[in-house]
Amino acid sequence: MKLGERSYLFKNPAHIVCGYTIVGPKEGEGNFGTEFDYVLTDDLWGEKSYELSECKIHRETIKGALKKAGMQDSELGLMLAGDLLNEIVASSFAAREFQSAFLGLYNACATFGEALLIGSMLISAGFVNNCSCSTSSHFSSAERQYRYPLELGTQRTPTSQWTVTGAGCTILSTVAPEGREFDVQITGGTMGRVVDMGVDDETNMGAAMAPAAADTLITHFRETGRAPSYYDAIYTGDLGKYGMKLVKYICEDEGMTLPPNYHDCGAMYYTDKQKTEQGGSGAGCSSTAFNAHILRKLQRGELKRVLLVPTGALLSRDTPLQKQTIPGIAHAVSIEVF
Amino acid sequence: MKLGERSYLFKNPAHIVCGYTIVGPKEGEGNFGTEFDYVLTDDLWGEKSYELSECKIHRETIKGALKKAGMQDSELGLMLAGDLLNEIVASSFAAREFQSAFLGLYNACATFGEALLIGSMLISAGFVNNCSCSTSSHFSSAERQYRYPLELGTQRTPTSQWTVTGAGCTILSTVAPEGREFDVQITGGTMGRVVDMGVDDETNMGAAMAPAAADTLITHFRETGRAPSYYDAIYTGDLGKYGMKLVKYICEDEGMTLPPNYHDCGAMYYTDKQKTEQGGSGAGCSSTAFNAHILRKLQRGELKRVLLVPTGALLSRDTPLQKQTIPGIAHAVSIEVF
Repeated sequence: MKLGERSYLFKNPAHIVCGYTIVGPKEGEGNFGTEFDYVLTDDLWGEKSYELSECKIHRETIKGALKKAGMQDSELGLMLAGDLLNEIVASSFAAREFQSAFLGLYNACATFGEALLIGSMLISAGFVNNCSCSTSSHFSSAERQYRYPLELGTQRTPTSQWTVTGAGCTILSTVAPEGREFDVQITGGTMGRVVDMGVDDETNMGAAMAPAAADTLITHFRETGRAPSYYDAIYTGDLGKYGMKLVKYICEDEGMTLPPNYHDCGAMYYTDKQKTEQGGSGAGCSSTAFNAHILRKLQRGELKRVLLVPTGALLSRDTPLQKQTIPGIAHAVSIEVF
Repeated sequence: MKLGERSYLFKNPAHIVCGYTIVGPKEGEGNFGTEFDYVLTDDLWGEKSYELSECKIHRETIKGALKKAGMQDSELGLMLAGDLLNEIVASSFAAREFQSAFLGLYNACATFGEALLIGSMLISAGFVNNCSCSTSSHFSSAERQYRYPLELGTQRTPTSQWTVTGAGCTILSTVAPEGREFDVQITGGTMGRVVDMGVDDETNMGAAMAPAAADTLITHFRETGRAPSYYDAIYTGDLGKYGMKLVKYICEDEGMTLPPNYHDCGAMYYTDKQKTEQGGSGAGCSSTAFNAHILRKLQRGELKRVLLVPTGALLSRDTPLQKQTIPGIAHAVSIEVF
């Protein structure tokens, strides 16, 4: 059911069969360390380059998710995937190992939200029976693609964030998985729009993305008629600690107070000792945090209603060099337990 | 209605309201030259870089399509867009000028097919009332991003193709446009899967993409139960002349003869005098050829049933340098006149 311009609630919600995550060693030492399905001891994982390692992480995460779901490759109708490598090659190269249809997505670090929205819409409408929604990022491939060669040892600014090395995959289905006490469903969502408030500092992604996150949150609550208190918890993707402050400030300014159960996956990701400045980021940030941490809480019934809002900064390496500002986007996904 | 693993036909088809195109000077001298909505005299279009020019072309194409549709920005619920620039910045930067929701897509030069498929599914299911499907490419930004600096004047290989400078946008709606003799609808489609037959020559995109195009064509006809003769014309996206030969050969080998009304947008795009070797390519190739040439034939009733199969090669500049082969993908879109 369409609500307003950008929101909808499903008559036939998509069921979350399972989630699966593979992360790098640093992520394994972070706050979700015990909850990931597989933690690498070496972020190259036997490959010759960080890019090939990211392809492998992405591919093995989808394989792991299918195995956990007890599903054959042939039962997976569609793969929705994206990542931060140029031309999303981690996703495309992962997809060539499977027989399923592939729709490549790119909304930067908000891509996981985009995948869950499109996947749940196509499942709700009956076009697909089962689909995978996966995103990845890799600290070492992202650093050298977007910023500087790793060997340069460039000093990090106080507003910077640490790109998560890892991939997360959620399997969606038209039918609920059997033998579970709680059935986790995607019940609706709000599609994000591109918001650019003129931030041009590519080491301050939180500031670039916060206006888009606030826009999506405000739109979600206005169009669905829900109050923030409807949800047991609200998680943005990777705004980081400073970005969280900004989104609270913008929402407050617009007359909406975000409740104490508002969190940010990036801000929660690493321990203070890990020196990641504002926290985690990357297309793998929200997808690994969701599938390792948030989904488990939903599956155990500890959370009943969650709003997940992955956030993305839509720049390339070239755009700041060409003096462009940084547009942001955020998608909201309603996830509820029955 | 779902048919087989990857195909479906709509109960509520999406109506094509209009198409709009902006192309570069060379494209204006090509075979579709009189059919484009706007032909640039300078491919920089007053901007300081080719990348910024591509952003402007993409943005102005969406604006032109909305104007042609007689639609306000506020009536456009969703923008589905993609391009060949790293992190699809032409699309993202175009989207920040609009209030609509934005879902960024990337399936290389098959992205226009992906956009039409997702757009028509979301419209058919009632999640969106009106959406735009747009893709762009720019010869000069693509050359320097994927290949060599333009100033180097590198000799082109006989298997190479010429990246189209241009953007095409189709507006889809739940309702048919008024006052038209013929109503053009997207009635179904087949989602592509990633196929990699080991081609590693990045100057031979036709060979890299042909197996995926053949796979999608064969799957479409098998799953829908339609024969190739069901369609008045079949158009692949940008296989070029050599890629067309390969796809005919592969289909023949699999027991399916492609009819004489099988064409390729890339192979048709330029005149022989324009020295583009195998023809046009790029994410703007099928979107400009469709909106300028094919859609007009449908709107005039000269074609009643068309299968459009945009094709894509899923490489980045880095993947051939890292000794990787080139995966391909193709999506099939059924377009019919009532």
